Amino acid sequence: MPCIEVLFLSAEDVEALPLSSHDILDAVELGLRAHGEGRVEMPPKDHLSLESRYRGHFNILKAYVEPIDLAGVKVIGDYVENYRHDLPSELSLLTLYEPRTGTPLAIINATRLTWMRTGAVTAIGAKYLARPGSKVLGHIGARGTAWYNLPLLDALFDFAEIRVASRRLESRERFAAAMTEQIGKPVTAVDTIEEAVTGADIIVDASRLSEERVLVANELIKPGALVMPYGAVRSTDPRLPFLADKFVVDDWRQATASEYGHYYRLIADGTLRHEHVHAEIGEIVAGTRPAREGDGETIVFWHRGFAVSDVVLGKLAYDQARAAGVGTTLTYAAQTRDM
Amino acid sequence: MPCIEVLFLSAEDVEALPLSSHDILDAVELGLRAHGEGRVEMPPKDHLSLESRYRGHFNILKAYVEPIDLAGVKVIGDYVENYRHDLPSELSLLTLYEPRTGTPLAIINATRLTWMRTGAVTAIGAKYLARPGSKVLGHIGARGTAWYNLPLLDALFDFAEIRVASRRLESRERFAAAMTEQIGKPVTAVDTIEEAVTGADIIVDASRLSEERVLVANELIKPGALVMPYGAVRSTDPRLPFLADKFVVDDWRQATASEYGHYYRLIADGTLRHEHVHAEIGEIVAGTRPAREGDGETIVFWHRGFAVSDVVLGKLAYDQARAAGVGTTLTYAAQTRDM
Repeated sequence: MPCIEVLFLSAEDVEALPLSSHDILDAVELGLRAHGEGRVEMPPKDHLSLESRYRGHFNILKAYVEPIDLAGVKVIGDYVENYRHDLPSELSLLTLYEPRTGTPLAIINATRLTWMRTGAVTAIGAKYLARPGSKVLGHIGARGTAWYNLPLLDALFDFAEIRVASRRLESRERFAAAMTEQIGKPVTAVDTIEEAVTGADIIVDASRLSEERVLVANELIKPGALVMPYGAVRSTDPRLPFLADKFVVDDWRQATASEYGHYYRLIADGTLRHEHVHAEIGEIVAGTRPAREGDGETIVFWHRGFAVSDVVLGKLAYDQARAAGVGTTLTYAAQTRDM
Repeated sequence: MPCIEVLFLSAEDVEALPLSSHDILDAVELGLRAHGEGRVEMPPKDHLSLESRYRGHFNILKAYVEPIDLAGVKVIGDYVENYRHDLPSELSLLTLYEPRTGTPLAIINATRLTWMRTGAVTAIGAKYLARPGSKVLGHIGARGTAWYNLPLLDALFDFAEIRVASRRLESRERFAAAMTEQIGKPVTAVDTIEEAVTGADIIVDASRLSEERVLVANELIKPGALVMPYGAVRSTDPRLPFLADKFVVDDWRQATASEYGHYYRLIADGTLRHEHVHAEIGEIVAGTRPAREGDGETIVFWHRGFAVSDVVLGKLAYDQARAAGVGTTLTYAAQTRDM
């Protein structure tokens, strides 16, 4: 009669872990490579929508990752008005499972891990797809994932200039000040998107719109730039994927199946099709599809976020917590038996 | 900066709750009625399959239930060989969420709750669809849900005779002895399915096959009987849904979408279609479709299990645990803030 224990990690437990930029990027890159090599099981994320009642929905992501032999399911709310309650828009629980018997191993507050893994995919996308020597980052949005996009990208590129635009003045000023301190170089809050992105080598669009609008006009995008939009609602020109030299996604099957996502409506109406996709990022990381092939290429990398990244980062947090004695060990079942 | 706490309930915590047959049946019937009245949000369950690697898969169920204003997601493994490790085949975690902000409320070991809610749907199905005065129960299977099918059905019907068949002698003898003690009347383990079901008014097929096989031959089914098969793999004659006077399901959309389930292959190949379905059980509970209309009707009620039942039963467990001070209160985030 085995006793089953699970490790619980709160927000503060996750903050106490020594997760370095290097650790995070390594773990997430391993996941992208496994995805590109077909060494994962990952049905498309799906959703429990309460939009007609409460202006929110839950995303439900699940994956098995062969190189770390672990399964996981993440539930994450997407409530854009939570800031009114001083709550993150994305409250999340990630559960990890031993894949031979389905035994639960860990339950993790994954709100911060979600920001981390999204920032890491942005950074790894730039590693393969941005022009070498990219020096100027233009960033739209100052919440959630923004807190990881900047340091993880800067760890790889050591930018000369970082500009941040966002809808709310107080958000972007607070964010720019905190980032300036964290990465030890000036991060400038600017008033307009035009100021943020003009001449930028890398443009990250982490806006969180409630309806589609063009925030980043095509003519603001410097030839040779890498543009990385994500989020649930489109904020770039709908023609951008077709005008770019390369259009890269994270998982095409998921992009076509799930009802949310920056370019989803273009896919749903048949405008954006598989033939327009140069590669999935995992194929590029695995080396089976080419990355950037010249300084002049303008590249769009759209990532929706996928469960493989959550599982690999959850595993990293779990291992670090076990090693450091962080978290609460819970008895899931003291007297397990078949009935 | 609100502090968010979640309640964790282990297997032993759930066992310590005063969940009565009456409580369980009431909660699950409320969920079925809400489903029938369209007062739920419930995308089809989906799956993370590891069958090609480890002979198991995870089912992932999610729902919002309007009358109790609560959302929940259940992850449950289905590993038919877990008994070799002295583990239940179904290890599960149910998480509950406040639907206005997506804030987690509870994390529950839902293995036993899953057996309960499945047993409750079986019993409520019989309440509406079995012949009044049904006196003989023939039950196939002696594991998992079987432990709740019998007492919950007997609470409604007060059977004169209960017979149990199962593949493994030691399972059915242990089960029959335990049930005899629990419900205070003889429960007889029999060696063959024929002995169990011949002349039975209600036949429950809770077998767990690894491949399709006819265990309950049509000629064994007494005219006027109610037959309730469930489980992931078909064990009745494929013609049974068409020969029955009424064929009732729990959720037709889910039945067509999800790759597992007793009759799924008949649906996938186009043989079993919506026109063959008399009603969903929720419509019958809500009174918008007729229940049994005569003693001579032979009725098949196939339930796959759905998330609404998990959420209502999770709410019952959560409320009882809060009232009784059972469970572990965890800090999900001490210093929640929007970032």
